[in-house]
Amino acid sequence: MRFRFRPAPRGVQFFDLFTESAAHLRTGADLLARILGADLPTRTKLAARLKDAEHAADEAAHQVYTALAQTFVTPFDRDDMYNLASALDDCMDAMDEAGELVVLYELGTLPPGVSEQVAVLRQCAELTYDAMPRLRSFDGLEAYWIDINRLENQADRVYRRVLADLMNNAEDAITVIKVKGVVDALEESADSFERLANHVQTIVLKES
Amino acid sequence: MRFRFRPAPRGVQFFDLFTESAAHLRTGADLLARILGADLPTRTKLAARLKDAEHAADEAAHQVYTALAQTFVTPFDRDDMYNLASALDDCMDAMDEAGELVVLYELGTLPPGVSEQVAVLRQCAELTYDAMPRLRSFDGLEAYWIDINRLENQADRVYRRVLADLMNNAEDAITVIKVKGVVDALEESADSFERLANHVQTIVLKES
Amino acid sequence: MRFRFRPAPRGVQFFDLFTESAAHLRTGADLLARILGADLPTRTKLAARLKDAEHAADEAAHQVYTALAQTFVTPFDRDDMYNLASALDDCMDAMDEAGELVVLYELGTLPPGVSEQVAVLRQCAELTYDAMPRLRSFDGLEAYWIDINRLENQADRVYRRVLADLMNNAEDAITVIKVKGVVDALEESADSFERLANHVQTIVLKES
Repeated sequence: MRFRFRPAPRGVQFFDLFTESAAHLRTGADLLARILGADLPTRTKLAARLKDAEHAADEAAHQVYTALAQTFVTPFDRDDMYNLASALDDCMDAMDEAGELVVLYELGTLPPGVSEQVAVLRQCAELTYDAMPRLRSFDGLEAYWIDINRLENQADRVYRRVLADLMNNAEDAITVIKVKGVVDALEESADSFERLANHVQTIVLKES
Repeated sequence: MRFRFRPAPRGVQFFDLFTESAAHLRTGADLLARILGADLPTRTKLAARLKDAEHAADEAAHQVYTALAQTFVTPFDRDDMYNLASALDDCMDAMDEAGELVVLYELGTLPPGVSEQVAVLRQCAELTYDAMPRLRSFDGLEAYWIDINRLENQADRVYRRVLADLMNNAEDAITVIKVKGVVDALEESADSFERLANHVQTIVLKES
Repeated sequence: MRFRFRPAPRGVQFFDLFTESAAHLRTGADLLARILGADLPTRTKLAARLKDAEHAADEAAHQVYTALAQTFVTPFDRDDMYNLASALDDCMDAMDEAGELVVLYELGTLPPGVSEQVAVLRQCAELTYDAMPRLRSFDGLEAYWIDINRLENQADRVYRRVLADLMNNAEDAITVIKVKGVVDALEESADSFERLANHVQTIVLKES
């Protein structure tokens, strides 16, 4: 087993990478909202931009993983840093999946509840973008955690209502399967935002 | 990076919290069994009680996470403690999802195999409730692990049979999607019980 | 908390166990390819052999977990070893699920894209079987990581095409649900191969 002390690579700024990832989440949530209101050709273009944001977020996550593997001393517990990067990535992946399925399945107008799901995700992304730089100072992170948990509860309620409407007033089973794919992906993104906020809280608890 | 030695908060009793979580699992599995046999208005009431049990289990898990973040010396490896709390939570979440979907989807009588799935979960919950206090003494935990693995194999066989019946003798595709949602959630709960037992075994192996 | 120094159990060869798991993956992917081309009675026999391979892989993973719990010094970070074993297991579980569903759902000829998915998995398994012994020397592991990521991108493209064809040209909703189950399991296996390669890369980064 080789083992060496190693300084943090110059220029690796974990907090900047987390903030960058959160900026991609904000872009992603905005694009999702626009996809819902667009026609199919425009949706295809917007979904390509969403995919670009997902790739950029993936790249940022990968930079965090590489830096973690090569850095001896990290600002917080290594595992917590890893979990943060990974949860940020999961939020984005699920948003990208939702946007991609809308195009892939050639869906028409989505039920209004889907826009409500996306509206909650936009708020989550905005709050997360504000919170990430505050990992440096811990300023107001408790409020962030509470807000995200409140939004996730709201997302759950919307999700259950959309699901019940979809399944109980269904006409065409294939359309049900398609829309359920989109709705589930959006719910997964909301769950990932909650997991992200929980990791932030763990860091705060450990350091306080 | 701030760093301090910190005593375990007074009154934090990890084993009591694990046992409490397992008690909620027992309650949850009992409620699930009653939901299957009830009419829709009664199901709605029972599902609300199941949701209460899920919230209580969530609260217990959160107490474990907080205590882990703030305690310097834990009875077993921190990660194993975390994994135990998290697996207990997953068992409950999946049971709650199953109960909730039965109500949300306004399902009628479920196929008999679903009751068999729930019967296995009740046994898993009972064994887990008996095992959690024995984490103090390690008494009989090997038998617990073997029993849960046997039950999980049984759950798998039931699940595959229910799934095959459902899919190959289906009349209405929407009903298939609905029942599959319930059946999958129950299978996920059984899988989580197995993962829980595997974490218990890891702890036993490390300490023996 | 009991604590002891403990030598590695004699005869536990982590790299041999990883290589053995990868050999099972190769067997599994070959069996999957043959299942697709066979009739139902032959499929049933081949799926039983796939299940045997899955059990054997499960056994190898369990030996790794036991050895990790009982070994004080491991060749790489304990968590990375655990993640490797776990990702190898996930690749296999998803392949086994795909094969099992083909039989359980009594499916006829699968769409041609499904064979393309399996062809990618065979390449992933082959590369992984070649790479595992090289964890000893780190020889060519960077190329392994790049190749698997390229294959996973290819798997994603095939998956999306199969999914779009399935959903947009569907006749029977139940068949769509069945085939989607198989196709999703194959995609999950490809994702697990990517996660496996990422864990290999983490190990390389930490040690280099």
